[in-house]
Amino acid sequence: MKRLSLPSWIVHYQRQWLSGDLTAGLIVTVMLIPQSLAYAMLAGMPPQVGLYASVLPLIAYALFGTSMTLAVGPVAVASLMTATALAPIAAAGSADYVALGVLMAFMSGLMLFAAGLLRLGFLAYFLSHPVISGFISGSAVLITIGQLKSLLGIPLPSGNAMDTLLALVRSIDQIKPVTAGIGIATLVFLLFARKHLSPLLKRFGIAPKAAELLSRLAPMAAVIVATAFVAATGADRASGVSIVGAVPAGLPSLALPALQWHQMQSLWLPALLISLVGFVESVSVAQSLALKRGQRIDPDRELLGIGAANMASALSGGYPVTGGFARSVVNFSAGAHTPAAGVVSAVLMAAVIAGMTGWFHFLPHAVLAATIIVAVTALIDVAALKEAWHYDKADATSLLLTFAGVLLLGVEEGIVLGVALSLAVLVWRSSHPHMAVVGRVPGTEHFRNIERHRVETLPGLVALRVDESLYFANAQLLENKIEGLLQNESGTRCILLILSAVNQLDTTALGTLTELEKSLASRGIALQLSEVKGPVLDRLRSTPLGQRMKDRIFLSTHQAFLAFAGSPSLSTDSPREA
Amino acid sequence: MKRLSLPSWIVHYQRQWLSGDLTAGLIVTVMLIPQSLAYAMLAGMPPQVGLYASVLPLIAYALFGTSMTLAVGPVAVASLMTATALAPIAAAGSADYVALGVLMAFMSGLMLFAAGLLRLGFLAYFLSHPVISGFISGSAVLITIGQLKSLLGIPLPSGNAMDTLLALVRSIDQIKPVTAGIGIATLVFLLFARKHLSPLLKRFGIAPKAAELLSRLAPMAAVIVATAFVAATGADRASGVSIVGAVPAGLPSLALPALQWHQMQSLWLPALLISLVGFVESVSVAQSLALKRGQRIDPDRELLGIGAANMASALSGGYPVTGGFARSVVNFSAGAHTPAAGVVSAVLMAAVIAGMTGWFHFLPHAVLAATIIVAVTALIDVAALKEAWHYDKADATSLLLTFAGVLLLGVEEGIVLGVALSLAVLVWRSSHPHMAVVGRVPGTEHFRNIERHRVETLPGLVALRVDESLYFANAQLLENKIEGLLQNESGTRCILLILSAVNQLDTTALGTLTELEKSLASRGIALQLSEVKGPVLDRLRSTPLGQRMKDRIFLSTHQAFLAFAGSPSLSTDSPREA
Repeated sequence: MKRLSLPSWIVHYQRQWLSGDLTAGLIVTVMLIPQSLAYAMLAGMPPQVGLYASVLPLIAYALFGTSMTLAVGPVAVASLMTATALAPIAAAGSADYVALGVLMAFMSGLMLFAAGLLRLGFLAYFLSHPVISGFISGSAVLITIGQLKSLLGIPLPSGNAMDTLLALVRSIDQIKPVTAGIGIATLVFLLFARKHLSPLLKRFGIAPKAAELLSRLAPMAAVIVATAFVAATGADRASGVSIVGAVPAGLPSLALPALQWHQMQSLWLPALLISLVGFVESVSVAQSLALKRGQRIDPDRELLGIGAANMASALSGGYPVTGGFARSVVNFSAGAHTPAAGVVSAVLMAAVIAGMTGWFHFLPHAVLAATIIVAVTALIDVAALKEAWHYDKADATSLLLTFAGVLLLGVEEGIVLGVALSLAVLVWRSSHPHMAVVGRVPGTEHFRNIERHRVETLPGLVALRVDESLYFANAQLLENKIEGLLQNESGTRCILLILSAVNQLDTTALGTLTELEKSLASRGIALQLSEVKGPVLDRLRSTPLGQRMKDRIFLSTHQAFLAFAGSPSLSTDSPREA
Repeated sequence: MKRLSLPSWIVHYQRQWLSGDLTAGLIVTVMLIPQSLAYAMLAGMPPQVGLYASVLPLIAYALFGTSMTLAVGPVAVASLMTATALAPIAAAGSADYVALGVLMAFMSGLMLFAAGLLRLGFLAYFLSHPVISGFISGSAVLITIGQLKSLLGIPLPSGNAMDTLLALVRSIDQIKPVTAGIGIATLVFLLFARKHLSPLLKRFGIAPKAAELLSRLAPMAAVIVATAFVAATGADRASGVSIVGAVPAGLPSLALPALQWHQMQSLWLPALLISLVGFVESVSVAQSLALKRGQRIDPDRELLGIGAANMASALSGGYPVTGGFARSVVNFSAGAHTPAAGVVSAVLMAAVIAGMTGWFHFLPHAVLAATIIVAVTALIDVAALKEAWHYDKADATSLLLTFAGVLLLGVEEGIVLGVALSLAVLVWRSSHPHMAVVGRVPGTEHFRNIERHRVETLPGLVALRVDESLYFANAQLLENKIEGLLQNESGTRCILLILSAVNQLDTTALGTLTELEKSLASRGIALQLSEVKGPVLDRLRSTPLGQRMKDRIFLSTHQAFLAFAGSPSLSTDSPREA
């Protein structure tokens, strides 16, 4: 019932929030117009599809989502994934292609919404930061390479990044000079604007925050100047500059997408991957912005929000959407207090679609390509690689392999590879546990690694601490370790396993311990346990092994040492030093 | 170089081992003759292929393996997997089919041998016991259902277990009475022999061990009686009893299999799965037998042994082999001391192939089917399910799902599902860590869960123990837990994380901790750590977070409590009781 009621930001809306929400909504709209046209081009969609995806989804998210500042709509990575999924089954820009994109948004929305109802938000955590970072950076490079053809006005094959680059070198003489001039000029201007426009505006006396926000309007300025240039010079006909052309005016009619079983069968996997990636991207942005204001977001309700946004996109002829990084940050800095800012954007976008689509006629594709390139290169995160490399080589390797996987194998393959790598690293680490033979620190009840510390041991007793849960992939290594220790230490009468870091002990490990205990017993060696955690001990006690060992399980390693020495009042002098 | 020298059992061979090896070799051969014919039938191969797979592989394993008692050759599960892999690409029993089986043995041998050289033996541990158990039991049921057609003499579709059973019910009127009579009589006799023959023989005054071994010869007795019956009555022509027919005599000529790229492409995955399953099965048998005599086996050299056996099988026209359970146990009990027993079997099998294949002409397929059914039903392990169910529901569920997967989806799908399930359970468990707020046990330096024990806490300090390594899939839950605690406990000035069970802390978890520390600091709450393990601390110290927190990382929780209380001589009375 709670979910059907009005969201609390509407119920508790305060008038003083309005100016922030209005300003933010306006600024985001000015960013959204070129971005929605550009990302539609990246997705292989006609321009109006990008515009349609920028209206209802914002309202749907405002009703279901929990982030106060997330800006939903077309984004680069989801657009790339849409193009990748649809390219093999329909011709880019065709009516079939658009219908499939709408269907994919609908399926993705359903999946996300269902996952939200099932409270599966935690699944987002199964993508590790390094994998996400490698995936986003790889996608950004792939997108940049893919946009070179529009930027320079030459036809290049889509697909593998290396092939595209090689084809570029071979057809370098086919570059259309005017197109390339417009594209490169826009690129240089936008790169300059990203770095230097805000300081420049500040020097002209504009308040720092306003300067920061104004600099975000550079893409719109480029669009206006370039459109005016082409309209005035007729460069589209004279020099073959590719332009957006006629964009249908008028709001889209609402309709359920045609659900065809065989199409859904070929789209379910891409829809799942786009849902996963879109959700993870969206939640990370929403979370980092929420933390800055001490707010919380709820991953399960975020699933509902992004799911509703995608279904709304599909109903209004749009393609897959999610929360985007750049627009959300601007929305946040422009003072958005609530999702009302998104509603403002949606209303403004609707007005644009209803009456102003003619203005985009002469907009050159090269400008959109430059917009995309500048937006996505900001996503390439070299710092994350450096940090991971410094902190953890395995994570850095996952990042690099995911990055390479996206570039060399493809977007979908890259993300699947990334997830597989995350899990492989996890399993690999826990399958090679750290184990240390320990002795007592003189005069204390503390036990430490005999190789690192000066400690006391008891002859005949080997105390082994296992620093990992025991389960199928590492149980055998424990047995091997013990057999190895026994070969080096003759005269061992007792093996004491210290299980302070063993949080789980699965059936396979139980089997291995059972066999080990028998095998040791047949050689006259007793197996003992100490510091077994409550939940592990509870289950162990109910097994035949637990029954057999019940007098050999000690609360603390200290007690086990005392028992082995055969005297409850053992002085700290009696054990020999190792 | 060491690998190229003679195995140590040859170098150190002692004359008193000879009688045991000879006896065991002879008894295993008598088991091996009907089994190799039966498993060839199960694999869809002509009978001689099973015989060929029972000569050279035994010698190759004797040279490279490390188990003293493993009996290598055709086995039920590998035969089923061979049939499953080849059925879609060639007609069972055809020359192409045989050539593909030989190629598969070769590829599997190469993979195993290469894995041995790369020391990948530990990979065997990535199949958990419950998954192996579910897989073997599922395969056994699948094999049993598949053999009903030969047992009863009716044609049934191969494939899905349910379909086969339904078809059986529909064509129950087509049962051939004489075939079914022979089959069921053999089945009943073999089931009786398995349970009651050994006690019966003992009652007739035969020594227990001899009685046990003699009872293992029942299948051979059934073969002889049934063959004689069909030869005498002409039931093959008169009543349509399906018989083995002409088996080519003479040893196979040695030849490298024809390596065709497109065939290898379609066989690599089945060859990989058969290698994995065969190796795991073989190593478990070898290991459990070795443990009984206090011997060790080396998984890496076992890979070489089983790999060499499969390559030898391929060179001599055989199909995939591995170490089998039943024959190995008999080999062990019959007193085999060394792989010389296997060499004895190989020589005897060669003699059979050279001159006695004519004897199998009238052997009814129904007898072979009964042999297979009795052998594989012994593999169905209900006890393992019961134990797992009692000890660990998640493991029991893996077992059941793998079992169901084999029956409903197929053999290869079943094993892939099983591996995926093992990993999913592992990840699921570690992604939901146990966390406990702890307090001090009065009068000690020990800290325990405040919900389970009567302990002291300090107002303003929340001490949280995390019972799992922190990594991408659970780091966010830690943050959620802390935010939840803060909502319930107003006035918190310090969060102390006790990391005694944290064996790893990956880049994602580091990022979460970094964000958490900042977010807590902005609310005036200090984050502290205690009992950080050496390797975790070493890495943490090199990060910005570690630098910032360096005065807030305590060796023990006790020290952290003392520091928070602001007095190094804090008496145990001063903290208030929780």
